[in-house]
Amino acid sequence: MTRLLRRYLPILDWGRSYDRTAFSNDMIAAVIVTIMLIPQSLAYALLAGLPPEAGIYASIAPIILYAVFGTSRALAVGPVAVVSLLTAAAIGEIADQGTMGYVTAALTLAFLSGAFLLLLGIFRLGFLANFLSHPVIAGFITASGILIAASQLKHILGIQAGGHTLVELVHSLLVHLPDTNLVTLLIGASATAFLFWVRKGLKPLLIGFGLSKKGAEIAQKAGPVAAVVVTTLAVWVFGLDKVGVSIVGEVPQALPPLTLPSLSPDLVGVLIVPAILISVIGFVESISVAQTLAAKKRQKIDPDQELIGLGAANLGAAFTGGYPVTGGFSRSVVNYDAGAETPAAGAFTAVGLAIAAVALTPLIYFLPKATLAATIIVAVLSLVDFGILRKTWGYSKGDFVAVAATILLTLGFGVEAGVSAGVIISILLHLHKTAQPHVAEVGLVPGTQHFRNISRHIVMTDPTLVTLRVDESLYFVNARFLEDLVLERIANCPEIRNVVLMCSAVNAVDFSALESLEALNERLTELGIGLHLSEVKGPVTDRLRKSHFLDQLNGRVFLSQYDAWAALSGDATRARAAE
Amino acid sequence: MTRLLRRYLPILDWGRSYDRTAFSNDMIAAVIVTIMLIPQSLAYALLAGLPPEAGIYASIAPIILYAVFGTSRALAVGPVAVVSLLTAAAIGEIADQGTMGYVTAALTLAFLSGAFLLLLGIFRLGFLANFLSHPVIAGFITASGILIAASQLKHILGIQAGGHTLVELVHSLLVHLPDTNLVTLLIGASATAFLFWVRKGLKPLLIGFGLSKKGAEIAQKAGPVAAVVVTTLAVWVFGLDKVGVSIVGEVPQALPPLTLPSLSPDLVGVLIVPAILISVIGFVESISVAQTLAAKKRQKIDPDQELIGLGAANLGAAFTGGYPVTGGFSRSVVNYDAGAETPAAGAFTAVGLAIAAVALTPLIYFLPKATLAATIIVAVLSLVDFGILRKTWGYSKGDFVAVAATILLTLGFGVEAGVSAGVIISILLHLHKTAQPHVAEVGLVPGTQHFRNISRHIVMTDPTLVTLRVDESLYFVNARFLEDLVLERIANCPEIRNVVLMCSAVNAVDFSALESLEALNERLTELGIGLHLSEVKGPVTDRLRKSHFLDQLNGRVFLSQYDAWAALSGDATRARAAE
Repeated sequence: MTRLLRRYLPILDWGRSYDRTAFSNDMIAAVIVTIMLIPQSLAYALLAGLPPEAGIYASIAPIILYAVFGTSRALAVGPVAVVSLLTAAAIGEIADQGTMGYVTAALTLAFLSGAFLLLLGIFRLGFLANFLSHPVIAGFITASGILIAASQLKHILGIQAGGHTLVELVHSLLVHLPDTNLVTLLIGASATAFLFWVRKGLKPLLIGFGLSKKGAEIAQKAGPVAAVVVTTLAVWVFGLDKVGVSIVGEVPQALPPLTLPSLSPDLVGVLIVPAILISVIGFVESISVAQTLAAKKRQKIDPDQELIGLGAANLGAAFTGGYPVTGGFSRSVVNYDAGAETPAAGAFTAVGLAIAAVALTPLIYFLPKATLAATIIVAVLSLVDFGILRKTWGYSKGDFVAVAATILLTLGFGVEAGVSAGVIISILLHLHKTAQPHVAEVGLVPGTQHFRNISRHIVMTDPTLVTLRVDESLYFVNARFLEDLVLERIANCPEIRNVVLMCSAVNAVDFSALESLEALNERLTELGIGLHLSEVKGPVTDRLRKSHFLDQLNGRVFLSQYDAWAALSGDATRARAAE
Repeated sequence: MTRLLRRYLPILDWGRSYDRTAFSNDMIAAVIVTIMLIPQSLAYALLAGLPPEAGIYASIAPIILYAVFGTSRALAVGPVAVVSLLTAAAIGEIADQGTMGYVTAALTLAFLSGAFLLLLGIFRLGFLANFLSHPVIAGFITASGILIAASQLKHILGIQAGGHTLVELVHSLLVHLPDTNLVTLLIGASATAFLFWVRKGLKPLLIGFGLSKKGAEIAQKAGPVAAVVVTTLAVWVFGLDKVGVSIVGEVPQALPPLTLPSLSPDLVGVLIVPAILISVIGFVESISVAQTLAAKKRQKIDPDQELIGLGAANLGAAFTGGYPVTGGFSRSVVNYDAGAETPAAGAFTAVGLAIAAVALTPLIYFLPKATLAATIIVAVLSLVDFGILRKTWGYSKGDFVAVAATILLTLGFGVEAGVSAGVIISILLHLHKTAQPHVAEVGLVPGTQHFRNISRHIVMTDPTLVTLRVDESLYFVNARFLEDLVLERIANCPEIRNVVLMCSAVNAVDFSALESLEALNERLTELGIGLHLSEVKGPVTDRLRKSHFLDQLNGRVFLSQYDAWAALSGDATRARAAE
């Protein structure tokens, strides 16, 4: 019982050894992360199409629930860019921004996503996330970064525009370009330029002034706060909201409210697929961050327990006015760099944000949306990396196709289409590769007991004996391939008396392949040719023993290929080296 | 040019050597097949929900086109049970039986199916049919047999009923059971009983009377003709149509008409997915029959050219009043047994059916539909074989799940849902199997150069050296699995200095797996542990050379595992046999 409790509640582990040093380290990290999270949370809420406070609420309860259930000591859970974009894409179809329906749909999406993650965790299905291959993830992140940046340009220009694909976004931006508000553009462009400079140029400058490297890095993360303060003051002092600069406006000055997601079958039906996508993508992002950070301190992440932690965090978001959340890269890295030792740092961050929600919201009344858009653009453009195209092109054309298709389809048809297509394409390419496996005809390397490909090496062969090494598991997709190949190989060679299948690389034989082997055995028996197997692995032999194949086999099963050669290559003098 | 022509027109091959013997053998086969096909074609048209003549038309042009383009010498192309059922399921959703819309939809379905098959053939994508595993096909055929038989019971009972799933069919039959027409039931039940007897009891009886085995078999195939003649006469003589026995009625006395499929985007949109399913299932059925028959005469079937042959046949059906066709099992076997030597037999059958369409149609006016239903029921029940459940259960639970799911989903949700789910389930099960591959820790078998699983064999090991044999290709689905496994294995063993991955069963390393290996190499480097590879295959080495992995690898690549052992197991005296 205690063991079970400790598995599902990692807090029982680290909570017992919590001391004053850990407390003060966690507190310092929490203060730094809180300052960074305020503009970030507001900005991602804007990206998701939600009121700004939703971003802050989504960072409070989820962060505490993850601290209780999660296994990573440094992960910071809350709104992230890609999930915010996916949320906007999913809800944009069914409700208009600014309506209660939109907010409720976001809660429902968080609820469904949380429930799905919890289920995956309880049934220990974390491995499903592996179906997203690295190239698909890289392609998806790059394409989403571009889409997100494009979607924020309207705030920089101060115009109305929309769309879920790059074409729609660009078209909509061009149509509304004449409405550009020049003051907004000035604020947006300056903020963007400033933030890019902070990212690239501030750290060397501060280090040059004698600041420590760590201090310079933390100052760099506070760049968005400076941009927020300066532009807010500018709007307030010069009354820029009166000349058309869009501002955040009134934000409720309150703790996160208690909210209820809607479980109407219609809404659930529409949102279930996006919720699954958001869960899986969020989980993949979160687990990579958690594992990267844990590896640095030799800590261990349990993927199935992570599902439970993220599930709980999303359910928390659903009931406290938030929207789907996950472990974010930038906030987690800041948390880690600032010295967070335990998930308690997250809990303190939540307290900090709750104080901000109650006390600071009036201060952001004049915050221009253009500034928030600038922080988003600068953050996501760092995710855009076309290098993956070059790398996969050099390594494997199949992986290249998966990346390129994911990027093009995400840009051209939106995030959901892109990532789904990426997964399906990688699976089909993998199956295609195994559908026509590499099969080498092998001969004996003279003077050894080793067998090698006759077309790559000088080896001994016997014209009455054909040995084929099958470099793939045998299963339905390639079942008939081997049968056809063997029949073709023997078709015009009446001298062949024996065929050996060397199975050192055959890791499984499924029922379709078994039937195909049975058919091959039958055909070869009719032709008076012996069919033998060699180097069959333990698990495969165990499996084959469950059928009658080994009894019906007209030849023998040899432990090693050399045994097969010794028994079957009747006439040593007939052996010859291949040219 | 000639070569290309001969590839796409196999008729140029066999046509050149066509002689008088072949002609007379083909003629005899054609007569026998024609007699058998008349009732069968009418029956399958009934099953597809089309007017009876559609079944005959669908056997004329397609059979000739297949003779020109197909590679099988014995395959007989025309309507078959499963494809007729799929046709009814696809069109039943969008048009009512007996309307022009229904007939047009059938033509369109044949057109789309033909076009899809042609495309697959031209792009040589025949391997796609392999995605249907043997268990899925077996489960699908069994479940469709049950559905078809159930769908025909209404004709035996003389009632109205319908439905595409077993529950719908049974429910509908029960609701209308009180309307049963007893005379129809008498005809239907007698015909069914007679046909079952013909199938099981007639042959031994005839052989007992001194008929040759082959003659008895042919007489057996003519059973349905006898049933047709007797019941038609009974209806005519006793005027049974006036007491409610449903008859075939007026059938146009004409050659196949020239028809045009509709290419309206709406219709095409609805029918494209069913057309693809019908194509693939029809192709799989056809190619199995063709290969079985070709194997007996050591002839060769070219799957890609078969796609072209079947594609042409379906286009032919679309323009001559037919519906989707494929190579049928029973008609092909009869054709083969009756001595057909070349596809010309098919062409002669087409002439026979054309004569029947012009001359014999008035004779079937009084043919009761119950008789046709009886021939269908007897034919399809022979396809029902639950033995596949037992066989797969004994061999592999994964295959069993695929069969059981296909059967249940086909019966419960219809043919399209069943076969799609079967394909998806088998792919997921395969991926799941490779997601957590078998990895054996191996040691040296004393006195040899062989390495075996330390938990199955008594072997030498060295506490500073861990050798893992990975029994699976490394790709995105299992990429992180190996990384986690290695890190876990070394976690609590500070004495480990070297890790060897023995890659004899690794047939491929995709980009995700490469990145995972790179990460592993980096982690082990940090820990001061060497990472080595052994027995890497040629194609895998070639691929790895395209990346920087082999340069960055902190250890070495050994040709054989024994070389790795010799180089790394520093202190032979520390080697110990595992208990």
